[in-house]
Amino acid sequence: MILTVTLNTALDLTYAVPALTPHTTHRVTDVAERPGGKGVNVARVLAALGHETVVTGFAGGPTGEVLRGLLAPLPVRDALVPTSDATRRTVAVVDTATGDATHFNEPGPVITPAEWAALVSSYEELLAGARAVALCGSLPRGVHVGAYGELVRRARRAGVPVLLDTSGEPLRRGIAARPDLVKPNADELAALTGSREPLRAARDARRRGAHAVVASLGPDGLLAVTPDGTWTAAPPARVAGNPTGAGDSAVAGLLSALVEGEPWPRRLARATALATATVYARTAGEFDAARYGELLERVTVTEHATAA
Amino acid sequence: MILTVTLNTALDLTYAVPALTPHTTHRVTDVAERPGGKGVNVARVLAALGHETVVTGFAGGPTGEVLRGLLAPLPVRDALVPTSDATRRTVAVVDTATGDATHFNEPGPVITPAEWAALVSSYEELLAGARAVALCGSLPRGVHVGAYGELVRRARRAGVPVLLDTSGEPLRRGIAARPDLVKPNADELAALTGSREPLRAARDARRRGAHAVVASLGPDGLLAVTPDGTWTAAPPARVAGNPTGAGDSAVAGLLSALVEGEPWPRRLARATALATATVYARTAGEFDAARYGELLERVTVTEHATAA
Repeated sequence: MILTVTLNTALDLTYAVPALTPHTTHRVTDVAERPGGKGVNVARVLAALGHETVVTGFAGGPTGEVLRGLLAPLPVRDALVPTSDATRRTVAVVDTATGDATHFNEPGPVITPAEWAALVSSYEELLAGARAVALCGSLPRGVHVGAYGELVRRARRAGVPVLLDTSGEPLRRGIAARPDLVKPNADELAALTGSREPLRAARDARRRGAHAVVASLGPDGLLAVTPDGTWTAAPPARVAGNPTGAGDSAVAGLLSALVEGEPWPRRLARATALATATVYARTAGEFDAARYGELLERVTVTEHATAA
Repeated sequence: MILTVTLNTALDLTYAVPALTPHTTHRVTDVAERPGGKGVNVARVLAALGHETVVTGFAGGPTGEVLRGLLAPLPVRDALVPTSDATRRTVAVVDTATGDATHFNEPGPVITPAEWAALVSSYEELLAGARAVALCGSLPRGVHVGAYGELVRRARRAGVPVLLDTSGEPLRRGIAARPDLVKPNADELAALTGSREPLRAARDARRRGAHAVVASLGPDGLLAVTPDGTWTAAPPARVAGNPTGAGDSAVAGLLSALVEGEPWPRRLARATALATATVYARTAGEFDAARYGELLERVTVTEHATAA
């Protein structure tokens, strides 16, 4: 199975309004509730691809109960660790006329030392059955900033390939623990390295400890700098749509192809096709399965001679 | 005891953000959860004034559970009727720099015929012990538009004074059932009668069936047109602050003074002082108790010779 870790899970609410006008009252015409957080999104895509998937991280309070209730019918196993504080909500207000979204993210729970210890203990047990692990998203309050470094080291000690997808100081500290793969977007990579030149920045990220770097460059696709070579992967055309969740779908593509033993070019093609099919989908974070099949044949993967 | 009915209760969330910028992502710096809906607000103020208070209406789903959990420590009795659909949320996004609020109101549950029947049955039992009843706010989906008319008639049959505070068609239909008192604001009164001249409109509302009309005119205070006379009540000065909940505090003032046997001028003074003390309070919907005491002495109530 593939394990995804979401320390700061969320109950994602999407509110449809005709148009957002600050400092007025809006009647919400439609409400959607989804289990959220980056690792939960990754797990949903992995499950859709037919992989046995386990979700861990934290969930608590009434919002955590709703989150778990929404996970229950999905083909992913819930191994979330209970917390006394409540899981955060995120609210995305979508203007129905334009599709533009305005996001409000609650700060989330404060995790106690005992809850963190329970998570680490459960994580160790789950690693024994995992073929790969993804560590995804922000850290909740109360969890030490080196938490991802600790989880990376434990995965490596267990011999399980580990992907880290976070930002800021948690990324900086996590990368030093030598994860197999990091998947920053252009902004996260620039914040880490100080360079907005993706190839230069990705090489810098490798020097900081990542064995391989796959940078998501939005509509330009992916740049991979690995011990085996350097590649770019681009979708067949620029896509208009909602990019929410595209990065999480890319992570699912990379991990699923990794555990299937696919070589880098096929991992990148899959990740690019899934990310693009997610932008096409009408519901944020879902992917359009028919488009995915078409796109997989039409992604262009180019190897670059430049030394990694 | 005083009974308040809130058919469309809400879990009120207040999000603090530095400033609302449409189509961007906001980190919410503070989250407050309160039990909401107009009759719940009225009950909270009645309880603070020392009145035994019972809250009925509908609550369901995880949001309804949270609402009831937040009601539990308050000195009001929870007689809410369970629903299978979930209670709505409202989200108020407040810019911390300016205090300006942007509101998002979920549509709320769909009430089944069996749930409505359960409410009516419970309401009849509660009326037997009630000295007054307030019917407050919008109707949830599934409840017939004449619902307030039905609840007004049952209160009158039980000999319990009934105040109706709603708007639109539910007000139009409810007023025809001859409530003892309606408390529209200027906009609601204009929508009902077609007149923006408050005295003319209030007289029209009486002709439509209300025994007495107390119109809340924002910073100008209250206008009362009753069988006993016509009065205006004005706060000592215009107040800057958050008017959320001021109308609900006015309802609590009117009802509490009614059951205490106070004459109209003292009912109006209390309602005006409570509404003004609510605008002063830092938390939306709370009232500043010290200010209330001061204001009560300083509200100006003027009787008008004009025939009601």
